Amino acid sequence: MSESSRESIYQALASIRLVDPHTHINPHSPASTTLADLLGYHYYTELAHSAGMAKKEIEEEDIHPRDLVGRLIQNLGPLENTAQYQWLVEICRKFFNFEGDRIDESNWETLYDVAESKMSAADWSMTVLDQSNVQAVFLTNEFDDALTGFDTDTYIPCLRTDDLVFHLGKDSVRERLQFCTEISIDGSLTNLRNALDQRFEHFIKNGARACAISLPPTFEPKCVSDGRAEVALADVLTNGLNADPANQITLSNRVFWTLAELCDHHGIPFDLMIGVNRGVYADGVYQGQDLYDSRVSLIQYKELFNAFPKVNFPISVLASVTNQELVSYSWIFPNVITNGHWWYSNTPSFISRDAAARLEAVPRTKQIGYYSDAYKLEFVHPKFDMYRRILAKTLAEQFVSQNGWSEERAVELGRQVLKDNVDRIFPKPS
Amino acid sequence: MSESSRESIYQALASIRLVDPHTHINPHSPASTTLADLLGYHYYTELAHSAGMAKKEIEEEDIHPRDLVGRLIQNLGPLENTAQYQWLVEICRKFFNFEGDRIDESNWETLYDVAESKMSAADWSMTVLDQSNVQAVFLTNEFDDALTGFDTDTYIPCLRTDDLVFHLGKDSVRERLQFCTEISIDGSLTNLRNALDQRFEHFIKNGARACAISLPPTFEPKCVSDGRAEVALADVLTNGLNADPANQITLSNRVFWTLAELCDHHGIPFDLMIGVNRGVYADGVYQGQDLYDSRVSLIQYKELFNAFPKVNFPISVLASVTNQELVSYSWIFPNVITNGHWWYSNTPSFISRDAAARLEAVPRTKQIGYYSDAYKLEFVHPKFDMYRRILAKTLAEQFVSQNGWSEERAVELGRQVLKDNVDRIFPKPS
Amino acid sequence: MSESSRESIYQALASIRLVDPHTHINPHSPASTTLADLLGYHYYTELAHSAGMAKKEIEEEDIHPRDLVGRLIQNLGPLENTAQYQWLVEICRKFFNFEGDRIDESNWETLYDVAESKMSAADWSMTVLDQSNVQAVFLTNEFDDALTGFDTDTYIPCLRTDDLVFHLGKDSVRERLQFCTEISIDGSLTNLRNALDQRFEHFIKNGARACAISLPPTFEPKCVSDGRAEVALADVLTNGLNADPANQITLSNRVFWTLAELCDHHGIPFDLMIGVNRGVYADGVYQGQDLYDSRVSLIQYKELFNAFPKVNFPISVLASVTNQELVSYSWIFPNVITNGHWWYSNTPSFISRDAAARLEAVPRTKQIGYYSDAYKLEFVHPKFDMYRRILAKTLAEQFVSQNGWSEERAVELGRQVLKDNVDRIFPKPS
Repeated sequence: MSESSRESIYQALASIRLVDPHTHINPHSPASTTLADLLGYHYYTELAHSAGMAKKEIEEEDIHPRDLVGRLIQNLGPLENTAQYQWLVEICRKFFNFEGDRIDESNWETLYDVAESKMSAADWSMTVLDQSNVQAVFLTNEFDDALTGFDTDTYIPCLRTDDLVFHLGKDSVRERLQFCTEISIDGSLTNLRNALDQRFEHFIKNGARACAISLPPTFEPKCVSDGRAEVALADVLTNGLNADPANQITLSNRVFWTLAELCDHHGIPFDLMIGVNRGVYADGVYQGQDLYDSRVSLIQYKELFNAFPKVNFPISVLASVTNQELVSYSWIFPNVITNGHWWYSNTPSFISRDAAARLEAVPRTKQIGYYSDAYKLEFVHPKFDMYRRILAKTLAEQFVSQNGWSEERAVELGRQVLKDNVDRIFPKPS
Repeated sequence: MSESSRESIYQALASIRLVDPHTHINPHSPASTTLADLLGYHYYTELAHSAGMAKKEIEEEDIHPRDLVGRLIQNLGPLENTAQYQWLVEICRKFFNFEGDRIDESNWETLYDVAESKMSAADWSMTVLDQSNVQAVFLTNEFDDALTGFDTDTYIPCLRTDDLVFHLGKDSVRERLQFCTEISIDGSLTNLRNALDQRFEHFIKNGARACAISLPPTFEPKCVSDGRAEVALADVLTNGLNADPANQITLSNRVFWTLAELCDHHGIPFDLMIGVNRGVYADGVYQGQDLYDSRVSLIQYKELFNAFPKVNFPISVLASVTNQELVSYSWIFPNVITNGHWWYSNTPSFISRDAAARLEAVPRTKQIGYYSDAYKLEFVHPKFDMYRRILAKTLAEQFVSQNGWSEERAVELGRQVLKDNVDRIFPKPS
Repeated sequence: MSESSRESIYQALASIRLVDPHTHINPHSPASTTLADLLGYHYYTELAHSAGMAKKEIEEEDIHPRDLVGRLIQNLGPLENTAQYQWLVEICRKFFNFEGDRIDESNWETLYDVAESKMSAADWSMTVLDQSNVQAVFLTNEFDDALTGFDTDTYIPCLRTDDLVFHLGKDSVRERLQFCTEISIDGSLTNLRNALDQRFEHFIKNGARACAISLPPTFEPKCVSDGRAEVALADVLTNGLNADPANQITLSNRVFWTLAELCDHHGIPFDLMIGVNRGVYADGVYQGQDLYDSRVSLIQYKELFNAFPKVNFPISVLASVTNQELVSYSWIFPNVITNGHWWYSNTPSFISRDAAARLEAVPRTKQIGYYSDAYKLEFVHPKFDMYRRILAKTLAEQFVSQNGWSEERAVELGRQVLKDNVDRIFPKPS
């Protein structure tokens, strides 16, 4: 019975047209042009490297996409067991008429040709969106992105702020900020705030629905006084990356707090992605160098959550051991929202246990079930589908079988976390 | 097969008359008088607030219970998915002839009337206990509770000591201690100890079977020398809450250690509930402000567990990530006992995984399966029933199906953790 | 369907002849001589003690094995629910014609006699290996072990280095090192390194395939300069265990780093078993005193993993909360390998969730599924069998049922983590 409930709930969930609330899609090139774009996703390159493939084999400059795919295919054997490999097989089945279980030396060339041919269609992006039952995707835009040349109803801008908070010590970042805002980043906190505000104006005018940032496990947001912030800003302006580390942290805090104030002022959510250490494996492949210290707590965000009761904070945690805190903080704080299953927690067994804990304890209106985090549109489908299958199983077992809910009611809950909450928590700017 | 085992094990467990080893029941008013007492439970007010209901709507003074229930009902929709909502539905079904799945604007008024009518019976408390198959419940008494005017066989006193350990800096707490003991709390450690001892005498004389305390994640019990303790006590007596924080911590440690000595002397267990941070969400509703930092370890209790080999320490941990440590410490230390599923870990998915880990590795004599933590008697049933269903499932799958146990043997294990261990670990004072 | 898949996958896995990559078997006395050797395993003594049996009852000197078994049997009742008890029953069923579920006062004497008779056979060790379908086991040898008098094809040496890294302050350890190497441990770093290198030569010449160590949660490997190391070594040589604690830690780091260099030089893996605090319960029974602080992170090993890209580090973590970090670090670092389910994480529910997370995210070539950690050969079978059953269940559910794999393909993955990776990661020295 649970088996058939699960299947019918899954079918109902699969029929819902999605909005993907966090991706890294490039709206000027949203879909892939060859299999190399798919296999170039860091999950494949880093896993192939982890399994023994040399970095220089993977990152050779000017290599032809077909040659790169040929090389990577030879190194996919050790990855066959991974959820990530499963996504790839799903993509090939869904979009390229592939019927096998394994992509290997016996079949990749045909697959490469079929894919290239399909991808060359002028409307390939729209085809992928359509076949994936996806209506729109959120982007991850640099703060100085012009946000022009694409349809912001389909590709929804999102202001990513890591550079502003953590890299203002770099000349290049300050120059970019000055250039795009035409506001001088000198020692004035007012100018700094005005420049940030101008970015919010620009983004919101262009349809942005969220501000977002990823944060290291050591970060602990604090309100910094003007006096303290001025000293820190002066040091960083003078000494850049050689400024006193305490001042760099102070400035990060000041900028972060200002962003929260601007989210409050402009009425948009502030997505916090908590827990990543950058560059842990320095010799890793591109985007395959980051890891984490799971000893992080949401208690570090106590001051922030209390200070901004009107800002919605959709929170992603990198490690599943933080999920229970996320559940509890969302259950208590009106402005804390559970958000998806991020990166190293985005594999079936972690999703299963984390989603189950959320569904039984966080108000149903405060859960954003999933986002794909994809760099290319083709990945939205298999990632969401992995989640949908787990969600359907949890709904069938926890709600239908154990709590005696009807399937309709379970689907209604699924729809809410999968789709409706995205629309409500990230409303279209009016 | 596992399905039918599970059901028959559940039925056998449900027939066991329970003693609930930890509640916050008020013995002078143990059951509810209207639905407002049920919906006023912090789980509903805090979740409704978290989902958007204003605090002032919830905590308006002098509001009529019926009006409050009407308001809360309008805000329960977002909570329907939670385990806590499920408890409420179970209560209404069990005690008030309710047959629906949802309590909403269409049916709450009838339900309110039925409940009020039933609750007005003179023997309502006994009816609830009886229908819940509950023989007795442990209380949580303030240290200066007179412990008179109720049947201590049914409502078993328990000495709660948070105020003594953490709030002796408050004039009101010292005054209450002086008043009830008639011992002067001056700079004398002897007097302080005598006052505490007098409280143990008072409680034990009145049938108390445990001393209990909740502890913040930073607490690390230590034996404090007399000299050091005298300095700390003098500072706290003079400066109250403005005393040197180090002295306040030292005094907390001294009092805590003295309580452990008195548990040893009087032969009663010391319930430790480890890991709560009070007042994290300062603007939350009543009792809906506490959260935690899951970065806590039982290694902090190493000195305590070694110093008091004859004191039984039933331990509750707030976060499921600490459960494995609890399992391991109970497996090694004769005086460490696993105790229930506390607060933020008291939802089905955390109970499932935590109970499974205990049942397979901690001696069966050292596990107290569950306590309800209830404030009103009506909640004892649905909470225990949630646990019993999970326990039955675990016994059916882990022991009957995987290990080949008979159902009888599985039920015997279930009975031990559910009931027998409570009787043995908290014996009646002779 | 999943049920039958599981059974046929289990049968296929059970037919694989194993190499156990980590045990504490004494090659001069690999199997038991009476039931006392089995019941003397620390799991039974520490659990019986935890459940109330006095240490002096367990550790009485010169007690006859039969009397000790009689005593322990009387105290096994409270342990019947544990996975460890299940191992014991499995051993008795497999090797001693036992047909019951419980070993108790009614049947232990017969069992004792049957076991003693079987164990007295000259080829008992080979019989156990053969019936367990085990080809060879890795040992845990003291650094000064002569490694003579046993078949190193069956009993594979492994250089255990805890004493060298953490106890060089003890006169006895330095004396043992001098004695076995004939190199003077004076203030010279060169001599110290030469002595260590000589141990590697000795071990590898005798068939060793790994260097191993267990590490406390506070340990954070660092490269120490020669100058700093000389100061530390001089202090430790002069003051032994009274040396400045900072110098003792520095010397530990220096020795540890040198061991990693020697693993690199000699091309053997360095097994790291991370997270144990020794002697937490000081009055516990022999080997029943160690526990842990689960607040540990692999970020502490960042410098090490980056510095030795060619050294394979099979990693065991003591607490399941560290498992996700292990998964992620293995997925990113080519030289990090997941290794078994250690000690307090070696019970079914932790194995299940930890193994599932590894199988879905770590390259299949980088997972060593299991080791027994056994002290006597009889335990290899029930421990591996516990793992095999869980592995079969995970493969049937995650891969066959959910991902649509054939059973053959699932068995192939199981074989790789169970056996093939052991052969490949710990190759025979050529």
